[in-house]
Order: sequence, then structure tokens, then C-alpha cells
Amino acid sequence: MALKVGLVGYGTIGKRVADAIAIQKDMELAGITSHTYNYRTEVAKRKGMKIFSTNGKEDFEKNGIKIEGDFNALLDDAEVIVDCTPKGIGASNKENLYVPQKKKAIFQGGEKASVGDVSFVAQCNYNEALNKDFVRVVSCNTTGLCRTLDPINKKYGIESVHATMVRRAADPWDIYHGPINAVVPVLELPSHHGPDVRTVLKDVEIFTTAMSVPTTLMHMHSLTVDLKKAAKSEEILDLLRETTRVRVVRNAERVRSTAEIMEFAKDLGRLRGDMFEICIWEEGLGVHGKKLFYLQAIHQESDVVLENVDAIRAATGFKDAQKSIEMTNDSLMVNRF
Amino acid sequence: MALKVGLVGYGTIGKRVADAIAIQKDMELAGITSHTYNYRTEVAKRKGMKIFSTNGKEDFEKNGIKIEGDFNALLDDAEVIVDCTPKGIGASNKENLYVPQKKKAIFQGGEKASVGDVSFVAQCNYNEALNKDFVRVVSCNTTGLCRTLDPINKKYGIESVHATMVRRAADPWDIYHGPINAVVPVLELPSHHGPDVRTVLKDVEIFTTAMSVPTTLMHMHSLTVDLKKAAKSEEILDLLRETTRVRVVRNAERVRSTAEIMEFAKDLGRLRGDMFEICIWEEGLGVHGKKLFYLQAIHQESDVVLENVDAIRAATGFKDAQKSIEMTNDSLMVNRF
Repeated sequence: MALKVGLVGYGTIGKRVADAIAIQKDMELAGITSHTYNYRTEVAKRKGMKIFSTNGKEDFEKNGIKIEGDFNALLDDAEVIVDCTPKGIGASNKENLYVPQKKKAIFQGGEKASVGDVSFVAQCNYNEALNKDFVRVVSCNTTGLCRTLDPINKKYGIESVHATMVRRAADPWDIYHGPINAVVPVLELPSHHGPDVRTVLKDVEIFTTAMSVPTTLMHMHSLTVDLKKAAKSEEILDLLRETTRVRVVRNAERVRSTAEIMEFAKDLGRLRGDMFEICIWEEGLGVHGKKLFYLQAIHQESDVVLENVDAIRAATGFKDAQKSIEMTNDSLMVNRF
Repeated sequence: MALKVGLVGYGTIGKRVADAIAIQKDMELAGITSHTYNYRTEVAKRKGMKIFSTNGKEDFEKNGIKIEGDFNALLDDAEVIVDCTPKGIGASNKENLYVPQKKKAIFQGGEKASVGDVSFVAQCNYNEALNKDFVRVVSCNTTGLCRTLDPINKKYGIESVHATMVRRAADPWDIYHGPINAVVPVLELPSHHGPDVRTVLKDVEIFTTAMSVPTTLMHMHSLTVDLKKAAKSEEILDLLRETTRVRVVRNAERVRSTAEIMEFAKDLGRLRGDMFEICIWEEGLGVHGKKLFYLQAIHQESDVVLENVDAIRAATGFKDAQKSIEMTNDSLMVNRF
């Protein structure tokens, strides 16, 4: 019997998670919430999704959108909620709705860690989220750091990490957010990403600094890792090639930039051209003694979609982490194409 | 019996045309040509396309790509060729290969008009291309101008047009092409687009000027049209809504920019997030007496894909223009989603 999942907050992440839920064989999308009529709602209608309004019916109905009910109606219909609302609203929804109505919920990384009983990256700590009521999927950047650092830590041991997070200025659709012609240092030391990694990889010492640059496509991380044991770059590349949800790309294949990673994902036929995997350049990884350097690119719009799907399974008691990861990967062509 | 089509030049347009040919019920993709190994070739392999090399086998084979033969081998296998090579190479291929080997070919708008027996926009002059040996699909910009001006000319009569072409600087993958922080006037008066429109719409007087701006997503045209008869803006919007391969978009739906048109196309599930239709803003169209103003956005990577498919049918004697346009539209979700 398919699990009925409600999707609250149909934005950049929410719309992707909704599509991903809709194609899981063990799940059914109970519906989505929308606040105002726009092209995203229009698409949801055309895809046959049930639409619940957090803001009345009038604006929707005059644009030809049928509203199934309000937020509470979706809560009644759904067995579990994925909350993809903007930062802070998830915590408020939890207190006002999910706790009183005893509804399990998955939150996003914009929320504070305390919103969840656990912070979650499927391939690192799936089991910690088993049967939990509230699971927080960490942010796109933290997910990227965890996916690549965890296998390195397990094989070589990590003494410490410094990572520079070079962040895209805005998402592609976001036309009133800059910078468009400057590099902006993020004057938060350390940036929140390092502490956030430690909510998942508790024994990894990591310090992060960040800046914003004028691009919309992907984030880029430059990592310096002090290993406990010496390693060879080919061994580490092999380790990363075997790691799920990580992709080693090659400049030699003309994947020279984040732009070409996005082009590659479009060519592969991914829905929306999404690159769910963390991409590491083969030619950009090096080792000097016990010091490892690498560059990785993170598709901020999509990497956490995979984690949301797995988090639903973990929270609702699906015990086999490996199997969940494979089911999610298969449905979205990860590790295949 | 499916028509065997060979695709020469697997770049931005070529890879899209190849995918479009592969899904036509009346066509079969005989194969593609490639010059060097790269991620595009890798994708073609994964999609099961036959790959022919214009540059030897070694570079491909060491990267695990099977080469079916050289350019001549593809010419032997294919009944008709779509040539999507860079500007000038099409004309040289015509002279050296297609004419001597009596092979029909479709060319792109980067070639001079003289490369074709006819310049082509399916909904304007399909019949002129019937059974021709060489058909030139006009450029993305010219296609956009023809698709919207033709119905207006037929209904109201056009005295004259001035269009300002605000061109995207480079395609999304093209990382070494600017401008990235300037507006560059194109000092060619008139720009080549106006005369190019007249290769298709022979009786439309049109003058165009152009500039490049720092974006990769779409071109934008600002048109001023002097009509022979007075019109109302709602009538013209209705006319454009009924015109195939044109889409009236609305700021009221939060489609405020080219970025959001691209986001809309991604959300709709279009392969690569392509927007094949010319997009006109409902709120950006106005009439003052006999003067019509409108803004339209052109997805430079994809609008001509539709024309290439129809041009193949016209050149090989498929007589029903309307039917060809419908078959192409249906296969690519145009006018449906």
C-alpha cells in the first residue's frame, strides 16, 4: 500500500521533491500546497497534482485552478509531510500543526538543526532517522560536504578540513537577487556549513568560509583535507567513483565548468536538467603527503531531492538504507546515466 | 518505411535535432557525426546513437566510443542529411559531398541564403520547400520574427517593421564568449536579420538593429509594426494565441523574465528545458492607432529544431504542411503543455 505524502511549499526544492515522490512505487503524492497562483501552480495542475491553498481560493479559481481544500485538508489526507517552505516557516508549521496533529514531517536545511530529531544525509546516517517523527534534511552545501567527506573519513581518517564555499548568487529564476557583478565575502566565521556538517558527521573537525559569486548554476567548494593516513590521488578517485550520489567528471571530456555540468545533465535527459550528484573534477583532485585537495560542484536546486525521498522512508520505518538509496537512485536515473 | 536521416554536426542545435528525429514515427536516425570525443559524444553513445567520425577513430576508441565509419559511411547510410555544422562548413559540405553524391540536405541559418534552394519557416512557406534538394532553415531570430509577423501581415497588412534584437551573449555552455558585463552594439546597419526575414516573408518591409547583452538564456526582440489597418491589442493577442509555435505568456503568472520562461519550460518536463515556442508577453503588447508594439523572447537553442524536422519532410515530398507541423508539435509537446 503506497504511503500518502503531502508536500508543503511548492518552490525550487518542493516542486522537485513532489515530482520525485510521484514516481516512487511505494509512495503516492497526496497533494501540494500553494500560496499564490503562478506558473508553478499551473504546471502542477497540468501534471494532475491535487492543489491545496494556504491562502484562500479566489486567486486560484479565477485562473482556472481547482483547490481541494486548505492546509488542514492536506494534513488530513497525508500520512507524512515534506515541508519545503522558506526558512523559519517549517519550524512554525511544526509547532502549530505537525506536533498537535501528530504528523511526521521532513524539514529542509534552512531550518535550525533543532527542528529535527536528527539531521540527515541518507548515505551517512540513514539509520539514525529510523522511525523518527521529525527529520531535517541538511542544506545542499552540507549534503555535498557530507557525501564526499564521509567515505574519505571512513577509509583514511580525517584530522581536519578547511573548505571554501563559493556560492551561486541566486537560483536561475530569481531575477531580483544579486550580486550580478561582484564577489561578496560572507562575514560569518566560521560559516554555518562547518557546524552543520557536524550535525551529521559528528567526529569530523571542519572549518568553512564562504563567498557569493555572480552565477546561478551551481555552488563550488574548494576543500583541503588533512588525512590521518597518507593516500594516493588515484585511490581517492576510485573511492569517490564507487561512492553513490557522487560523480567524478573530467575536463578531458570537455566538462570544464559548472555550465557544462548543467549542459551534460540536460543532455542526459534529466527532468529539469538536474544534476543530483556531487561532481568532483578528476583533474582537480590532488594529494601532497597527507594533504588532500579537491574541487566539487553542487547543484543547489536538486541534490537534496534524493535525501528527502530517503528521509520519508526512514521516518516511516523502512529499515533497509541501502535499498532505499537504490530505489531513489533508480527512479531518478542516478548512478545509471 | 521510416526515412533514414543523417545528422552532421552534433552541437547545440544538432544534438537537439538528432533527439527530435529519433522520436518521429516516420523517421529513423541513421547516425551522427562527431569531430572530437566529449561529453556530448558520451551521451550519444548512452542513447544508442550510431556515431560516425569526421576525424579518425583513435580519440574516440581510447574513450570507449565505437565508431561506425567516416563521414562518407554516414552519407551512404542516410537518405537525407541535416547539416548543423558551424557557419560556412555546411556550404563546403554541400559542394564537396552532398552535390556530387546527390544527397538532399537541410542547412542552418548560419549559412548564406544561397546555400538553399529556399529559406524555410514551416508555418510560413512549407510548400516552397516541397521536393527541393537543399533547404535552409533560417536562424533562431529570423524564425522568431517570421512566426509572429506572418499572421499579423496576413490579417492586418504590414506597412513596415522596425525590430531591435537584444541578443544573448553566448549559449549556456559557452564559457569563453562574452560580453559578461557590457552591452555591445552590433554595428551592422541594418543587421542581417531584416534582410533574412525577407527571404521568407518577401513582401514585408523590415529594418532591424541589434545588440548583445550579458545573458545566456534567450534573445529578446522589441518590435514596432506599422499596420495597414487599425487593430485592437486583444484581437492581436487572440490571433497570436491561435498561432502555432507561438506562446502568449503572462507577467501575472509570474513569468516576468526570460529566466522564468526557461524555468517554466523545465517544470513542464521539456527535454533539456527547451522552449520551442516564441514567447510574447500579454502585458507587453500594445496598439496605438495603426502602430503595434510587442516584446518577444526566443530560445536560441531550440526554436529551429521544429523547422528542421518539417524541412526534412518537405524536402522529401511529404505534401501536407499542416499535418507535418502537427506531427512535429505532438512529438515535442508543443501546443500541448
